[in-house]
Amino acid sequence: MRQSRMFIPTMRETPQDADSLSHRLMLKAGMIKQMASGVYTYLPITKLVLNNIEQIVREEMNAIEGVEIHMPVLHPKELWQESGRWEAYGSELMRLEDRHGREFALGPTHEEIVTALLRDELKSYKKLPLTVFQIQTKFRDELRPRYGLLRGREFIMKDAYSFHSNEDSLDEKYQDMYMAYSKIFSRVGLNYRAVEADSGAIGGSHTHEFMALADIGEDTIAYTEESNYAANIEKAGCPIPEAKTVESTNEIEKVATPDVKTCSALADFLDIKLEETTKTMIMKVDERYVMILLRGDHELNDVKVKTHFATDDIRFATDEEIRSLMQADPGSLGPVDAGIEVYLDHQVKNMQDYPTGANESGYHFLNVNHKRDFEIGGYGDFRLIVEGEMAQDGSGPVKFMKGIEVGQVFKLGTKYSEAMNLNVLDENGRSTPVLMGCYGVGISRTLSAIVESHHDERGIIWPKSVTPFDVHIVTPNPKDKEAEAVAEELYATLGADYRVLYDDRKERAGVKFADSDLIGLPFRVVVGRDAKEGVVEIKPRSSDASINLPVGELKQYLEDNY
Amino acid sequence: MRQSRMFIPTMRETPQDADSLSHRLMLKAGMIKQMASGVYTYLPITKLVLNNIEQIVREEMNAIEGVEIHMPVLHPKELWQESGRWEAYGSELMRLEDRHGREFALGPTHEEIVTALLRDELKSYKKLPLTVFQIQTKFRDELRPRYGLLRGREFIMKDAYSFHSNEDSLDEKYQDMYMAYSKIFSRVGLNYRAVEADSGAIGGSHTHEFMALADIGEDTIAYTEESNYAANIEKAGCPIPEAKTVESTNEIEKVATPDVKTCSALADFLDIKLEETTKTMIMKVDERYVMILLRGDHELNDVKVKTHFATDDIRFATDEEIRSLMQADPGSLGPVDAGIEVYLDHQVKNMQDYPTGANESGYHFLNVNHKRDFEIGGYGDFRLIVEGEMAQDGSGPVKFMKGIEVGQVFKLGTKYSEAMNLNVLDENGRSTPVLMGCYGVGISRTLSAIVESHHDERGIIWPKSVTPFDVHIVTPNPKDKEAEAVAEELYATLGADYRVLYDDRKERAGVKFADSDLIGLPFRVVVGRDAKEGVVEIKPRSSDASINLPVGELKQYLEDNY
Repeated sequence: MRQSRMFIPTMRETPQDADSLSHRLMLKAGMIKQMASGVYTYLPITKLVLNNIEQIVREEMNAIEGVEIHMPVLHPKELWQESGRWEAYGSELMRLEDRHGREFALGPTHEEIVTALLRDELKSYKKLPLTVFQIQTKFRDELRPRYGLLRGREFIMKDAYSFHSNEDSLDEKYQDMYMAYSKIFSRVGLNYRAVEADSGAIGGSHTHEFMALADIGEDTIAYTEESNYAANIEKAGCPIPEAKTVESTNEIEKVATPDVKTCSALADFLDIKLEETTKTMIMKVDERYVMILLRGDHELNDVKVKTHFATDDIRFATDEEIRSLMQADPGSLGPVDAGIEVYLDHQVKNMQDYPTGANESGYHFLNVNHKRDFEIGGYGDFRLIVEGEMAQDGSGPVKFMKGIEVGQVFKLGTKYSEAMNLNVLDENGRSTPVLMGCYGVGISRTLSAIVESHHDERGIIWPKSVTPFDVHIVTPNPKDKEAEAVAEELYATLGADYRVLYDDRKERAGVKFADSDLIGLPFRVVVGRDAKEGVVEIKPRSSDASINLPVGELKQYLEDNY
Repeated sequence: MRQSRMFIPTMRETPQDADSLSHRLMLKAGMIKQMASGVYTYLPITKLVLNNIEQIVREEMNAIEGVEIHMPVLHPKELWQESGRWEAYGSELMRLEDRHGREFALGPTHEEIVTALLRDELKSYKKLPLTVFQIQTKFRDELRPRYGLLRGREFIMKDAYSFHSNEDSLDEKYQDMYMAYSKIFSRVGLNYRAVEADSGAIGGSHTHEFMALADIGEDTIAYTEESNYAANIEKAGCPIPEAKTVESTNEIEKVATPDVKTCSALADFLDIKLEETTKTMIMKVDERYVMILLRGDHELNDVKVKTHFATDDIRFATDEEIRSLMQADPGSLGPVDAGIEVYLDHQVKNMQDYPTGANESGYHFLNVNHKRDFEIGGYGDFRLIVEGEMAQDGSGPVKFMKGIEVGQVFKLGTKYSEAMNLNVLDENGRSTPVLMGCYGVGISRTLSAIVESHHDERGIIWPKSVTPFDVHIVTPNPKDKEAEAVAEELYATLGADYRVLYDDRKERAGVKFADSDLIGLPFRVVVGRDAKEGVVEIKPRSSDASINLPVGELKQYLEDNY
């Protein structure tokens, strides 16, 4: 393709309003243009990359017997009422009325449509399993669209749905999808982790999120280099220390601690380490109050508290509730004579002679020991893991990284088939609800994630699997007619085997090189002043070294190095 | 692909509510499923064919330097207000409000978006010409969706837009597009005609519609077999007879014609042929009334009247206006002493001694002759052409056919660039509005048009260029294990070179053959009772003859015959 006929409106300045690296780079490289908040036009470079990503997704879906369909954007309200989501989805669901006053949603996801599609056609378990997928524009009215394509209101998704007559079949397809997703994200060049996304409370793993590791991202992932272990930090299990025999040695002692309201203030006051202090929290769990003790340097993880108590109904007690309950300020709480159940984080189990609040404002106890000084309601994993601690799978120390969710696999079970009457006759002729799985890849998100992780200070560095073109031919001096002739010929000959972008524009060399770095094709061929001697320069985008080659050897070089 | 894992819900019964042949066939062949009025899910067979059509369109667009982009579905109201179409588009434009109360349209076409996209980026004529295209879901709230995918509310379009700094460049691209469209519609297997779609009044040809000839269709096309001449019947020019010297021979004579109100009644009354009568009409053209005379067997064409008088403001005079103006009933009008301007259709020019109304209710004149008996305001082509008359290009007699509009090319000129301030600096540094063209292909319509013209009484017969699979392997007896083994091996070996659908379902032979005919792949390979002797049957879908072949020769047969 001749660059003069392309539309790549690169920018020299770094756009001020872009709030993520990929957003900035995609604007600078002339890849996207915002038309409204969270609504973008994808320009030619982007479209080429999207086509490549979509093709990889399509291949991997076909490989596991996924068949491609195309469902509508317009979803009749009645179907969403059947599933109960017309109300439940809230204001993220975009809605409209047609000329006859009938209401529709713009599809953010297609469970209702696909369930309605199949309930009329599936009669027998013999037609199962079945897996359908589509690659399609979706709509979600985000409250605060941001990060360019990472959180838009109109975006491209691959969504797949599978249908089964028994759990084994669903499990098998889930595993197939998990593997297909792993291949997809490997092929497009992402460093990703599959993260268990549900809490243990619900019972059994039935959803994984595929997170692309990146500097930006709204989730923090705990992972190890040593295995494929990864978990959202809210779900990452903390190591449980082996139980030691703890002997109580020192007498409990009450000390005045004026103005000490935090663990670090206490550590300073007592001249001990922060990790030698404890942190006391009062939470309301369902209808009762409980006290939770953590080590002073640890952070409470409310997701784990929910899991421990098997309820979603938890919250911190208010200062007012605390004063009424404990007759003390929040900064002076402790387990001794607390009058409510006390739970210890596992990490407190082996502590001894530790300080706690005295349930009297301005006072703490020293040398507190559980069992001796107070009763224990139970132990649990109540905290966020800390970087460097052993991962739950024992493979090595966890590291933290931000993650961008690029895919999710999910066992829906019979949620939609029961709500919407998708049944088949089983082997015994009994009507039974169909088991379903759903599986999503954020196509435009994946593109952003690729850019987040493949770039340098000069621009994008496309992985070969998704690059919009293979080779960038650049003529630094548009007035050099000899070079132009060589470039034209190269454009024609290389074009037979490679996708070539030929910068034939009448621009200065500086502009052309800067654009070339921004656009980031795997190889750049510079046809410059040595062209008249039949010599050109070739440089991989990922390296700083270029080499001079006779034109005749270029093809061989690319064959060897691409 | 194994048919057991596909989703092709064929029907045995002919669906009652389908209102066109393609609609019926696509329902029967399990290709589409209606989700709401004019809103469909495209099932796997359809999606495969659409992908093939889209790829052909993409290749032909790339071949004329079209670059692919992807514009949003959500269009901000403000842009449509700039062009004036927020109001003008009426209730076919689907509209919604986002959670913040901002209004959007669902794009039925993207002139506003693409103009807004480029006005920020195009500064100089040097960036021109530029052609962008997209393949995308569009929305139009049709009052009466019908004919399946032919007139839906959500449909797939390829729309392209070109940008130019001068007329020559626009003309050149228009010609390129015209040729690209011709290639596209030829490649997908349509019998089509490019039809001039504008009237001469506006000045010069600046739009063509590509009509697929079909039995259904809302337009009537006049075309010839002898050339590529084709025109919408409203635009098809009538042959102009050579002028003869017409001598007035008989005296004008007034006769009572009680109850004669039409030309055929007059012909009967006078015992002459209908074509020997004349038809008199009074029209209001702008602010004046004119009389138009046609031969009695011809039909007025109001589009041509508009063209002749270079105005859109024409209508028939009401009976009341006629009585007040002519002092006679509409059935008794004529040009003699009419008191208003009289225009003759070319075909009346050579008539002589013809009857006309006498401008007195219940009376006609016989032996009227123009010039002798009344003054002529002018001659013109005011009528619809009749099948069998010579085509305007002189190539042969016109035939009529219904046509489905599958594409349109259109010179927009500066309509949008002026309304929305899309300007570039020209060679002299002056700001000048950009010239635009727009070019559409109805992708889902094209699919319907293909089905309309490639079928027999048993089902679809896919053209090879768009067929979802090349070969259909069918095992008529699912219990025949030897045949199954042969089929499995064929599925694997043919699969290397061809796209194979393998009907591995546990269904009766009758069901399998009926489905196979409905689905209509180019070749069917039946692996039946002779399979154990290594013999299979192959049959092209387009013929009734099948031949038996040793399995080993199948590949060669396909190579020779595909």
